[in-house]
Amino acid sequence: MTAPETIQRLRDIIAGQDRDALMLEVSQAHPADVAEGLSTLEPAEIAGFVEILGPRETLEIFEFIPFDVQSLTLKYLSRPSLAQLMNIMSPDDRADLMEEVDDDFQERLLSLLLKHERQNVLKLINYPEDSAGAHMTTDYAILRPDSDVQTALEQVRLQAATKETIYYIYVVDAARHLVGLVSLRDLIVSRRKSRVEDIMSKQVISVRADEDIEDVATLSSRYDFLAVPVVDAQERMLGIITFDDLYDIMADEATEDMYHLANLDTDEKVGSPLLRSVKLRVPWLLTALGSGLVAAYTVSLFAKTIHEVVALASLMTIVALLGGNAGNQSLVVVVRALALGEIKVAHDWRVLLKEAAVGLCNGLIVGLVIGAIAALWFGNPWLGLIMWLAIAGNLVIAGLFGSMVPILLRKLNLDPALGSSIFVTTATDVGGFLLFLGLATLVLPHLMGN
Amino acid sequence: MTAPETIQRLRDIIAGQDRDALMLEVSQAHPADVAEGLSTLEPAEIAGFVEILGPRETLEIFEFIPFDVQSLTLKYLSRPSLAQLMNIMSPDDRADLMEEVDDDFQERLLSLLLKHERQNVLKLINYPEDSAGAHMTTDYAILRPDSDVQTALEQVRLQAATKETIYYIYVVDAARHLVGLVSLRDLIVSRRKSRVEDIMSKQVISVRADEDIEDVATLSSRYDFLAVPVVDAQERMLGIITFDDLYDIMADEATEDMYHLANLDTDEKVGSPLLRSVKLRVPWLLTALGSGLVAAYTVSLFAKTIHEVVALASLMTIVALLGGNAGNQSLVVVVRALALGEIKVAHDWRVLLKEAAVGLCNGLIVGLVIGAIAALWFGNPWLGLIMWLAIAGNLVIAGLFGSMVPILLRKLNLDPALGSSIFVTTATDVGGFLLFLGLATLVLPHLMGN
Repeated sequence: MTAPETIQRLRDIIAGQDRDALMLEVSQAHPADVAEGLSTLEPAEIAGFVEILGPRETLEIFEFIPFDVQSLTLKYLSRPSLAQLMNIMSPDDRADLMEEVDDDFQERLLSLLLKHERQNVLKLINYPEDSAGAHMTTDYAILRPDSDVQTALEQVRLQAATKETIYYIYVVDAARHLVGLVSLRDLIVSRRKSRVEDIMSKQVISVRADEDIEDVATLSSRYDFLAVPVVDAQERMLGIITFDDLYDIMADEATEDMYHLANLDTDEKVGSPLLRSVKLRVPWLLTALGSGLVAAYTVSLFAKTIHEVVALASLMTIVALLGGNAGNQSLVVVVRALALGEIKVAHDWRVLLKEAAVGLCNGLIVGLVIGAIAALWFGNPWLGLIMWLAIAGNLVIAGLFGSMVPILLRKLNLDPALGSSIFVTTATDVGGFLLFLGLATLVLPHLMGN
Repeated sequence: MTAPETIQRLRDIIAGQDRDALMLEVSQAHPADVAEGLSTLEPAEIAGFVEILGPRETLEIFEFIPFDVQSLTLKYLSRPSLAQLMNIMSPDDRADLMEEVDDDFQERLLSLLLKHERQNVLKLINYPEDSAGAHMTTDYAILRPDSDVQTALEQVRLQAATKETIYYIYVVDAARHLVGLVSLRDLIVSRRKSRVEDIMSKQVISVRADEDIEDVATLSSRYDFLAVPVVDAQERMLGIITFDDLYDIMADEATEDMYHLANLDTDEKVGSPLLRSVKLRVPWLLTALGSGLVAAYTVSLFAKTIHEVVALASLMTIVALLGGNAGNQSLVVVVRALALGEIKVAHDWRVLLKEAAVGLCNGLIVGLVIGAIAALWFGNPWLGLIMWLAIAGNLVIAGLFGSMVPILLRKLNLDPALGSSIFVTTATDVGGFLLFLGLATLVLPHLMGN
């Protein structure tokens, strides 16, 4: 977090339009840090910052500002600054920003772009939000296979200023088909007279523009890539996705899974205003309430049994709690394995069987412990026995549902984590109450007198 | 996953000691893919692979094999191959591997290393497991500030073969103090006669060797660094940590948080054998059982009340369920914010207050809904009223404990996610039952007759 003094100083400098002071301020900090402080100011002040420093000098800082703040700021910029800024932004960031603004303003921004850049934006914003195409930049460095290394280095040098990275350089033929990859390291260490096609790696791993961006992130982390090339169906280069964007996507994906498992909306942050947090959490709690009502209704079916043996009301909470815990264990193992690409569809049924078997073993072990405790506590071995059986059965339900729900959701092309914990808890609550109270009703004469 | 045919082919080629076939096999796939197939073979077979292909040709593949498989393989290697392999491995991977083996074998491996490499290993394995020092590599490229760009490029070229990265080059003085950073891109685009100190960036963000590696990963993702330099207390360069290692650490950290929130051991994988999964999950379920017993005991205190009004047994499950859900929401928001560095200790109390307030608002809203349903279901407004109050109170408890537990754990330098969901669930179960059944006992005459 930026110190309040720093933010106040920034504010004062902007108000005073003191370009020299601003240059000094900016030169002493990393663009990401300046952007963090800046993001806490009003959009009009941020626009003032851009005007004073100039779009070109602000660009690197501006790209670290969150998109929602960027889009608010644009409305306060003068037309020349806005036009310049939009034309020099990196294509992937610009496309993301354009999707953030309303249609009218998007039209206006498009009209400010040079023809070439405008076509570029229109191409990028047509890809679906979660696709590789939507996250790629079209600023990548290229070489021809028949160049020699000396020439290639000179060409890279010429491309360096405007490309997102020059550490991976893509080798393309005349029709822009991707035919190879050379790293700048390869170029630097090779003899100056070697030809690019002799030093390039020919087995280039690429992704299609319509592939899921999360799969691309998994791929990239597996191979330690600095960037992943994006191609069309004819293997023609369309763009690249760089490691820093993929890094953010991995982190966002993990946050999303954790949030969805805990029944939270991904728009929420620890710093969200009170009423926003309330608004985002209430729908989830109401859904959980639906699940709770089903469970409560199940219990109410056994009102007579509970009336006779009140101890059941205490002990049934343990059956539900253990089922919920075990179901959540299976759920998280499977959700994480799906996210990291560790489960293939062909092997799904094995995961289900294994989780059910783990549930059975754990249920028999833990159920025996609590069964013994319950038998001693209430002085009735029958109580212990039905507890044991109910927990063993409920942990099988937990294993089955905990693994089945996320796999089913994935097969339906939905997020495996979204709402899955509510499904699983409903299954273990209802299953646990049915098993435990049902068994208790069956052996009721043996339980009476407690 | 590697296809069974590929693995069998690999196995046959190794058995037949066919070097040419092996070279062909290896040249057609990415090292990470070869390593994946190889990892499924017996350690003796993997050692055979290394012997046939030679340590130098195998190195890149070998470094993609998991450390536990690597360490088993080493024991089957001939002495010359072992010595060569250990001496050419990258220092960070080698140090990690050396920590995996038993003390006797570690001694043997150390004796095979050249003096310089041996000292290097001893230095690295002395850093605590979660520190920046333990994850750094000492193979980084350096330059002197007074070199000109032409000379600098030549020096980088000479260093390229042995360094982990040459895209960030660290500028050090004669005593190896870190004074600047130049990227290879900067060098390529600068005039050949410029001096390094004039083009380098002087505000280099570095970390101390004893800093927590997770903090370093957060830092690196914030600034989009390719590598982070590690320095000692006198700002002398010790090593660098590259983005690919930090990427893995971020992913591992997310897995760890998700696993700990779900009460799972991080050693477990979706593919773990049945008995191992059982062994790793039982202790957690037994801990949850302890929490369940406390809750069950709380309920048993109100046996008489429940005996009179059995509807309470149904409805109390809803109070506990909503409390558990809301507590988990607060918990995950705070755990994730701690992991991403979004909460600073100075602002902790504000988070607690906010979460309690969110709990109160949500409790009043959701409690009103379920209170109305309960009143209609059982035809008793008093039942609805106590339900409303109990849920509002329990959701305040949920907000308080859900935010307090992870913050306290972090202040005690423990993992904020570890075991925290059990604490929070215990608080909301016990709190919910106490509030709901306690209120019911107070107004019992009004509830009777249902």
